[in-house]
Amino acid sequence: MQLHCIDCDSRYSISDFKYACSCGGLLEIEQDFKFLDSEYLKRKFEQRLSDRMTPYASGVWRYKELIFPELEDRFLITKNEGNTGLYDIERVNQYVGIKKIWLKSQSENPSGSFKDNGMVVAVSHGKSLGLDKFTCTSTGNTSSSLAMYSSLTNSQSYVFVPDKNISLNKVLQTISYGAKVIAFEGTYDQGIDFLEKYSGELGLYICNSINPFRIEGQKSIIYEIAQYLRWELPDWIVVPGGALSNVSALGKGLGDLYELGFINRLPRVAVVQAEGASPFHQMISKNKNELQPELQPKTVASALNIGNPPSWKKARNTLNATNGITVSVTDDEILNAKAVIDQSGIGCEPASASTVAGLKKLCESGQIHRDETAVCILTGNLLKDTEVLRQYHLECTENSLFANPLIKSKLNIESIKHL
Amino acid sequence: MQLHCIDCDSRYSISDFKYACSCGGLLEIEQDFKFLDSEYLKRKFEQRLSDRMTPYASGVWRYKELIFPELEDRFLITKNEGNTGLYDIERVNQYVGIKKIWLKSQSENPSGSFKDNGMVVAVSHGKSLGLDKFTCTSTGNTSSSLAMYSSLTNSQSYVFVPDKNISLNKVLQTISYGAKVIAFEGTYDQGIDFLEKYSGELGLYICNSINPFRIEGQKSIIYEIAQYLRWELPDWIVVPGGALSNVSALGKGLGDLYELGFINRLPRVAVVQAEGASPFHQMISKNKNELQPELQPKTVASALNIGNPPSWKKARNTLNATNGITVSVTDDEILNAKAVIDQSGIGCEPASASTVAGLKKLCESGQIHRDETAVCILTGNLLKDTEVLRQYHLECTENSLFANPLIKSKLNIESIKHL
Ligand SMILES: [Zn+2]
Ligand SMILES: [Zn+2]
Repeated sequence: MQLHCIDCDSRYSISDFKYACSCGGLLEIEQDFKFLDSEYLKRKFEQRLSDRMTPYASGVWRYKELIFPELEDRFLITKNEGNTGLYDIERVNQYVGIKKIWLKSQSENPSGSFKDNGMVVAVSHGKSLGLDKFTCTSTGNTSSSLAMYSSLTNSQSYVFVPDKNISLNKVLQTISYGAKVIAFEGTYDQGIDFLEKYSGELGLYICNSINPFRIEGQKSIIYEIAQYLRWELPDWIVVPGGALSNVSALGKGLGDLYELGFINRLPRVAVVQAEGASPFHQMISKNKNELQPELQPKTVASALNIGNPPSWKKARNTLNATNGITVSVTDDEILNAKAVIDQSGIGCEPASASTVAGLKKLCESGQIHRDETAVCILTGNLLKDTEVLRQYHLECTENSLFANPLIKSKLNIESIKHL
Repeated sequence: MQLHCIDCDSRYSISDFKYACSCGGLLEIEQDFKFLDSEYLKRKFEQRLSDRMTPYASGVWRYKELIFPELEDRFLITKNEGNTGLYDIERVNQYVGIKKIWLKSQSENPSGSFKDNGMVVAVSHGKSLGLDKFTCTSTGNTSSSLAMYSSLTNSQSYVFVPDKNISLNKVLQTISYGAKVIAFEGTYDQGIDFLEKYSGELGLYICNSINPFRIEGQKSIIYEIAQYLRWELPDWIVVPGGALSNVSALGKGLGDLYELGFINRLPRVAVVQAEGASPFHQMISKNKNELQPELQPKTVASALNIGNPPSWKKARNTLNATNGITVSVTDDEILNAKAVIDQSGIGCEPASASTVAGLKKLCESGQIHRDETAVCILTGNLLKDTEVLRQYHLECTENSLFANPLIKSKLNIESIKHL
């Protein structure tokens, strides 16, 4: 296991852990699977499914040999993450117009989002280094997840957010888990620069998406899908594109499974961005070599509202490796797809619904065939954003195709019969 | 399997399903475990732990033989309910001052509360009767759970709520899952009377807590705790007391496990009510024979804000069978216990925290000894009530012992170092 710079190809020992290469490039973790016995591992992963009270009951640590083999067991923290449902819902298939979709409901994670899969590994790594102060700059799912795991392991988390336009509602989950939430004068970029510069001096372990252990943990999402489907993946994996760390992890996980012979063919990856925050889709569809940041990203799907995704090079590698594609969808398309997912009894936050909206668009344009199969990764819980629900259902505009407003009625058989 | 009236002892065949005895008494389901082979079942329950893609992966249907043996497999609906974490958290043990507490986190259920364990069985039963319209009167966790399972099985749910003082936020989850939410002129009692009178004519299947199949499903919570702990339960099971169906289910489940020889001794049950809505505690502590409803129940723990709990007789049976006790706690005690649970990385809604607050009080009064062990059942998710979080942490009063307000700071090493 070593660190590898995706820009200049430098390599560093894992014991000299750092967040970025001296060239400024992003680091990824390289593992050597040459000496692993795939059949033995497969049996091991099956056995661990019946575990409930050890860290190997986790849907992340179940695959520890592929994620962080060197970590001593005493540093494994867990909160029952992963083990999320994989659902085949006829109503959603029909809405998209495709043979079969699996919805992977990462919203069932303990803090309500897919971030838990990666965060549990980053925080465990930090603890193994002897650190007990964890930090990130985020107001969203990342900060809630970080706060939860830090507190779970008796550590303190520090969450830095710009004091302009801070929505208190978004940080309530984080605050309640016990994070110190610091509203500072400045921008996100200044916050990240500050942490990279002073984390050593402050004894802080950084859990932003640049942390390569988060990617290793997030690989477990695709491992789990594959295991649940007996190592036969569908034709397409559809994933929302915000910070793009999810795409990167997906690609890395697929590569692992293929290299180890767990799967015989690579599915194709489709990345869906919101139209108002789609720099990655713009770059790919226009065949550009460099990502042009979107300076004023704007989408209702707050988890996708990212104009300058740090992991775009890793995500591009995923597209190259899987013959992947990108697409963008409007906020209305996202919200209507979300209503269909919610009303099918699954539920998700807006960013997650971009996958179903994007898949629909790709089917309509013929880029994906209607007799193919797909997994859509639902990243966050319906309860994460109730303001969007209120607007869609109770202030319903003409674009809310599936609005479900409150009904006022007298309590008598004639009135009720006709509802 | 038959229906039994807990008031007049009448018995009815399950094929003549009804919600109440002709005497007006509550019905419970009686099962005959005489011919069951406990060792065989134990092995079966273990084998099913590794299941993921069949209904038996459910933490409810895993125990189908003890819950609804007659139900044909084609009627089993499921959404990955149960399988929730059981946590041993040192910080909570210390707060309470007891040797060991297990927190059973039912908040990890798919709709975010323990109601899913019972609702999945009620809706499956309704489907097996050929019904596809489901109903309840509730604004809380019951209605979200009902809406989720109804939609999951392509059925329509109808949720009746009095139009006075309806909090829209509380029904947003229910509306988003696709329930028709009907705000009617009248009271809760009028709503329930209406449903009992007209449900047949309207083709509605009633999922209020009077439905005895909900109790059968909720028994799985104690089965799962026992299985995870290798059939050795702690000295005490501590449970919040609102509608008291949870207490009833707990008692029934414990009785099953004891009768089948899965456990050798019955733990004692402690029921915790909020001071402002504690008619059951009042009755028990004053040695009364009848429950005196609290006409104006008032507690911050909305799931406990019930003045006339329908299942009080069943709950009293549980206390009698387990040498159980009751206690009441103030809203401040609930909110401070909640802050401790949240800040330990577990998290829950206010009603759940009453268990930890009550256990602390019972330890302090000497009714529970500090070298005993306990399970506290956490019933609902932290994200269910963010308004309480806002008030506690951001408007913190002197009673908010563990308030964690937002910090404003400049972004420089000197300021940050001293946080
Ligand atoms: Zn480099
Ligand atoms: Zn009767």
